[in-house]
Amino acid sequence: MEATLSAGTARVGQSSTNTAPHPTSLELPGVFEGALRDFFDSRRELVSNIGGGYEKAVSTLEAFVLRGGKRVRPSFAWTGWLGAGGDPNGSGADAVIRACAALELVQACALVHDDIIDASTTRRGFPTVHVEFEDQHRGEEWSGDSAHFGEAVAILLGDLALAWADDMIRESGISPDAAARVSPVWSAMRTEVLGGQFLDISNEARGDETVEAAMRVNRYKTAAYTIERPLHLGAALFGADAELIDAYRTFGTDIGIAFQLRDDLLGVFGDPSVTGKPSGDDLIAGKRTVLFAMALARADAADPAAAELLRNGIGTQLTDNEVDTLRQVITDLGAVTDVETQIDTLVEAAANALDSSTATAESKARLTDMAIAATKRSY
Amino acid sequence: MEATLSAGTARVGQSSTNTAPHPTSLELPGVFEGALRDFFDSRRELVSNIGGGYEKAVSTLEAFVLRGGKRVRPSFAWTGWLGAGGDPNGSGADAVIRACAALELVQACALVHDDIIDASTTRRGFPTVHVEFEDQHRGEEWSGDSAHFGEAVAILLGDLALAWADDMIRESGISPDAAARVSPVWSAMRTEVLGGQFLDISNEARGDETVEAAMRVNRYKTAAYTIERPLHLGAALFGADAELIDAYRTFGTDIGIAFQLRDDLLGVFGDPSVTGKPSGDDLIAGKRTVLFAMALARADAADPAAAELLRNGIGTQLTDNEVDTLRQVITDLGAVTDVETQIDTLVEAAANALDSSTATAESKARLTDMAIAATKRSY
Repeated sequence: MEATLSAGTARVGQSSTNTAPHPTSLELPGVFEGALRDFFDSRRELVSNIGGGYEKAVSTLEAFVLRGGKRVRPSFAWTGWLGAGGDPNGSGADAVIRACAALELVQACALVHDDIIDASTTRRGFPTVHVEFEDQHRGEEWSGDSAHFGEAVAILLGDLALAWADDMIRESGISPDAAARVSPVWSAMRTEVLGGQFLDISNEARGDETVEAAMRVNRYKTAAYTIERPLHLGAALFGADAELIDAYRTFGTDIGIAFQLRDDLLGVFGDPSVTGKPSGDDLIAGKRTVLFAMALARADAADPAAAELLRNGIGTQLTDNEVDTLRQVITDLGAVTDVETQIDTLVEAAANALDSSTATAESKARLTDMAIAATKRSY
Repeated sequence: MEATLSAGTARVGQSSTNTAPHPTSLELPGVFEGALRDFFDSRRELVSNIGGGYEKAVSTLEAFVLRGGKRVRPSFAWTGWLGAGGDPNGSGADAVIRACAALELVQACALVHDDIIDASTTRRGFPTVHVEFEDQHRGEEWSGDSAHFGEAVAILLGDLALAWADDMIRESGISPDAAARVSPVWSAMRTEVLGGQFLDISNEARGDETVEAAMRVNRYKTAAYTIERPLHLGAALFGADAELIDAYRTFGTDIGIAFQLRDDLLGVFGDPSVTGKPSGDDLIAGKRTVLFAMALARADAADPAAAELLRNGIGTQLTDNEVDTLRQVITDLGAVTDVETQIDTLVEAAANALDSSTATAESKARLTDMAIAATKRSY
């Protein structure tokens, strides 16, 4: 649920070199999509040589990547680079755009594989990739199990996106020095997000109800992957000093966690007409959020009847009335106030880290806007 | 089934530099395993910081990678580098070993994900990764579906192996020039093997019975991935000229396809005590091999009753007697002779390409040994 994360705009333009002039005042998502489109074009011949229907399957991946999303991670990376002193009109800006856009291919793998793991059937209003191939298999009356075929193809296309993410950043045109600086960040980011995904399913399976376990998922699956490491990557692309990198990472971690906490609140209290998800979706889906863990901890300490209601309700097909009851229980326990306080504290700490950093004034303003959009009360 | 692919031996030794002396006359697999072990060590702190049981899951991946396999792909890559003129006693040899060993992490992803796709329960005498986590989930009586949990963890660990393959080659210590030469080979190899895997499941689902479809899978899932591209990678690491690269690629493609054709024969005619698989395993598993496609093409042209026997039998739980009958049908149709002739032709073409190349005499001898081991009649 990234409805409130805004990507902002880019001004890649007025190149002073003799190459073709950069587009001016384009929205960032469009700029990243252009880079992704070029990358897919660069792979077409290789894929077409392999033949046998591979090209058609890859075109499904391409459509998935190009169809949407707010390009949040590349936007943070780009803004991190700008804030460190990157020149959007300089000759190296295009390479930076390509390197940042490569994050969207990591994200494509994460989404395609996560949708298998979560057994999700739709994303962005379209069937998920595994469901699309399952439907194709069924429609064509092919042999074997349709669901298994869909998952198999989606596993392979997710792998391809992950492999191509590397290809894209490696071929981005950034300098060898920049590539060397980026390398450990790129590595840590992928190791962390896969760790966050593992912790998520493992906590759920083990029935780990602690706030600490839920917070660890927020830290690695959301905060590090969505904001902290993209900003760090941008800083590394430029060659920023350790002080700015520290400030970015603090800002990114705090805002990333605050964003997830806001998302947790929306998942229980959000208006379906705004979130696009059923009322109380996280409760029905059985998501072990920090919000829920905090409510449970308070209930266990002071209100056994409330604890029983929460434990019996989570992960079941709740009616609207039952959702309302659980909302009231969670609110009455003080968990909503707890989470709102945490969000406020995190946003303030993030703002302090950013304000006292050496980031450019323009990027501070933009990052602050992005932070507010990501964490503001909107239900 | 790689029982006959020999990795040969390495002589990484007698370093003339002031660094620690290289191990002498070590078997190649052990050298690659040492490099892989060092790589896993280098990731331990990052993984341990993430916490929450991630380290334990990653140790399962580590055990899987270190436990076995013949290290065929790194061995071909290393031999390709040697054959182009690489100095195993030079100061750059360790970096080349690391770059070659990274192929084993790509292979770990391929195996872990393929075992999900093929619903395989054992590999190398151990439970497959998804079955290991499925068993853990069941044993610990965690909540949710055990099989789905096992697959979810295995998807994530396969992704991690793929991401780490990139990290390992990027951090191998090869020169920026070598890295630039290797980049397109590395990219093509992964795009091809994922294509080969896709074609494999897609042909089976669509019921594509043509020799051409089966041969395309051999080309990309086996030949390019196992021999052609590893040799190409080795040549690119050294900076070999286009002529040697062409010779390697011809040799690798031909031997790779011949190896798969030999494997096809073993899958139907192999002695279970040698192959470690049930008699007629490929027939029962419903594998659409070139051998089977050739038999079917001949049957369709001349013997409708044989065609019916083949189509009704493939992919069913055949008794030993039924396997014997199908073997006889395939032999009588002339398909075995066809395939043996193809193997001979390919091995000869490969030998010619290698002989007339500028590869060193020692590497020619070694590659010839590896080719013979991979393709010789052994049932």
